[in-house]
Amino acid sequence: MGERRWAVAVHGGAGTEVPKNKADDDALRGGIEAALAAAAAILARPEVPSVYCGAPRHLAAAVAAVEILEANPLYNAGTGAVLNDAGKVENEASVMDGATLRIGAVTGLTTVVYPVRLALLIHLKASHKFIGFRSAERYADSFPDLIERRANETFITEKRRAAQQRAAKGAGPHGARDLVDVVGETVGAVVFDAMNGGMLACATSTGGVTNKMAGRIGDTPVVGAGSYASNGLCALSGTGMGEEFLRLAAASRICGMMEYGKRSLRDSMHHVVHDIFPADTGGFIGVDAEGEIVMDGNSPYMARGSRDSDGKSFVGLKM
Amino acid sequence: MGERRWAVAVHGGAGTEVPKNKADDDALRGGIEAALAAAAAILARPEVPSVYCGAPRHLAAAVAAVEILEANPLYNAGTGAVLNDAGKVENEASVMDGATLRIGAVTGLTTVVYPVRLALLIHLKASHKFIGFRSAERYADSFPDLIERRANETFITEKRRAAQQRAAKGAGPHGARDLVDVVGETVGAVVFDAMNGGMLACATSTGGVTNKMAGRIGDTPVVGAGSYASNGLCALSGTGMGEEFLRLAAASRICGMMEYGKRSLRDSMHHVVHDIFPADTGGFIGVDAEGEIVMDGNSPYMARGSRDSDGKSFVGLKM
Repeated sequence: MGERRWAVAVHGGAGTEVPKNKADDDALRGGIEAALAAAAAILARPEVPSVYCGAPRHLAAAVAAVEILEANPLYNAGTGAVLNDAGKVENEASVMDGATLRIGAVTGLTTVVYPVRLALLIHLKASHKFIGFRSAERYADSFPDLIERRANETFITEKRRAAQQRAAKGAGPHGARDLVDVVGETVGAVVFDAMNGGMLACATSTGGVTNKMAGRIGDTPVVGAGSYASNGLCALSGTGMGEEFLRLAAASRICGMMEYGKRSLRDSMHHVVHDIFPADTGGFIGVDAEGEIVMDGNSPYMARGSRDSDGKSFVGLKM
Repeated sequence: MGERRWAVAVHGGAGTEVPKNKADDDALRGGIEAALAAAAAILARPEVPSVYCGAPRHLAAAVAAVEILEANPLYNAGTGAVLNDAGKVENEASVMDGATLRIGAVTGLTTVVYPVRLALLIHLKASHKFIGFRSAERYADSFPDLIERRANETFITEKRRAAQQRAAKGAGPHGARDLVDVVGETVGAVVFDAMNGGMLACATSTGGVTNKMAGRIGDTPVVGAGSYASNGLCALSGTGMGEEFLRLAAASRICGMMEYGKRSLRDSMHHVVHDIFPADTGGFIGVDAEGEIVMDGNSPYMARGSRDSDGKSFVGLKM
């Protein structure tokens, strides 16, 4: 077995409930497998498909994995995202290239089918790197061939509509934490590519929390909170109660512990998730500069999986 | 001289140009003095004025200082903020209480006279902690007695209109960095209050960068990027090229170096500002858990000042 050439991990969200039957369980696992396969397909070839607009391979692979989960109506991102208190889907996403620390982030999307693709285009082409709401939709208008659009209603599934209506009845206007069905679902991917000494990237996408106040911005588009990637350290993608990730600058905290405290990714993530997070906050997937994958969380459920060039693979739902 | 009871620092933005005449210089210094005085007045008394809605004294003092600068048309925040590429003012702000790590953040405001006051109300009362654009305006509607509103045109000064028109001509639609008159102006305050073992808070507010793309979100509402406060470590408020602060998670990086690398605030801020920031990115004001003030930056200009309970005070414009 030679040097590890690549490694990828994906998550499909953390929560407080585990799937209730085998069909749901199988479908969720299948989604994770498909996302891993999409990233692996890109990492196995020298050329990056041109739809990624010149993104480096490690970043394209992370985006490809997230797009698979955005398209899957079971996961809370893109199609199938949770509804806000206005009964609409309002999606957000981000990407980061650990080679350059360049980011792209977007929030408040209502018509973009693949939010992470718009985050990638912001990363690659925009002079600003975090764009929100109607202006983000207008920015999407400038890429009619690259950014697929649909009416907001087409993102909505029956399951999400019912969950929002339950939350709206029980929780008042803005959805108290304990009344949300499944906390903090999000999707994300982290990638290690050994090319050029070790490249790292992350991509994350979400619809936020059920019955969220319209206009709420979570941790997913905030690099340093819900994600971070820095060559030589790690790439991270988080899932859970966004407000906790934001106030703790959770992803940046893990990186700071590694960079300035000289601790491993495993120790740093464990410290943040188990010593600093309040109970049931969520967790992270991460990969370090040698391609070692770490996935940890403090909620009962976190859909996640990993695969690497050595042939190792894993998929799990319970923590 | 006993224990330091309190300390406050404020900034009025970093930039590449220094004031061209004594009148401008005096007016900018006067603004900093007034902001310091507002914070000092709150820190000198046991009771916090009721308009701060129950905020603790250290946080109320930081907000009071920022409100003075938001009201001052010379500074790029609130009234007198820079214009975006649609010719409008679009303000953003955040607060953080180092005692609880609770935050409040807002972006895309077009009618709120004191954006930092709305960030404080989000901190104190909202179930979500980062709210943007039309929804933030709607949230402001729920506090008619506490949140003053005005039409967007009334925020606009002749100087900012002219600067935006120059930038729009020269820079294309989204304002390249080198064509902006003065880079990264923002206002902010950090406060130390010795009460209860040492309380820290920060507050920051900005109009962003001249001719910014409408909908652009900068580092000011992103805690971990443009600000952070954590009792036992420090409180920070930054000013400069927001996109650089975001991708570097700059404030969180300073905290990480202190917490996990056991370095001083002075060393940590120096490292981030002089070793990590690209040239002319901007800087930070900060105060540590003993009330020691540190202000550092890598741009030629940074309006700033400090005052403490020992009677020490300072105001400066050039770095």
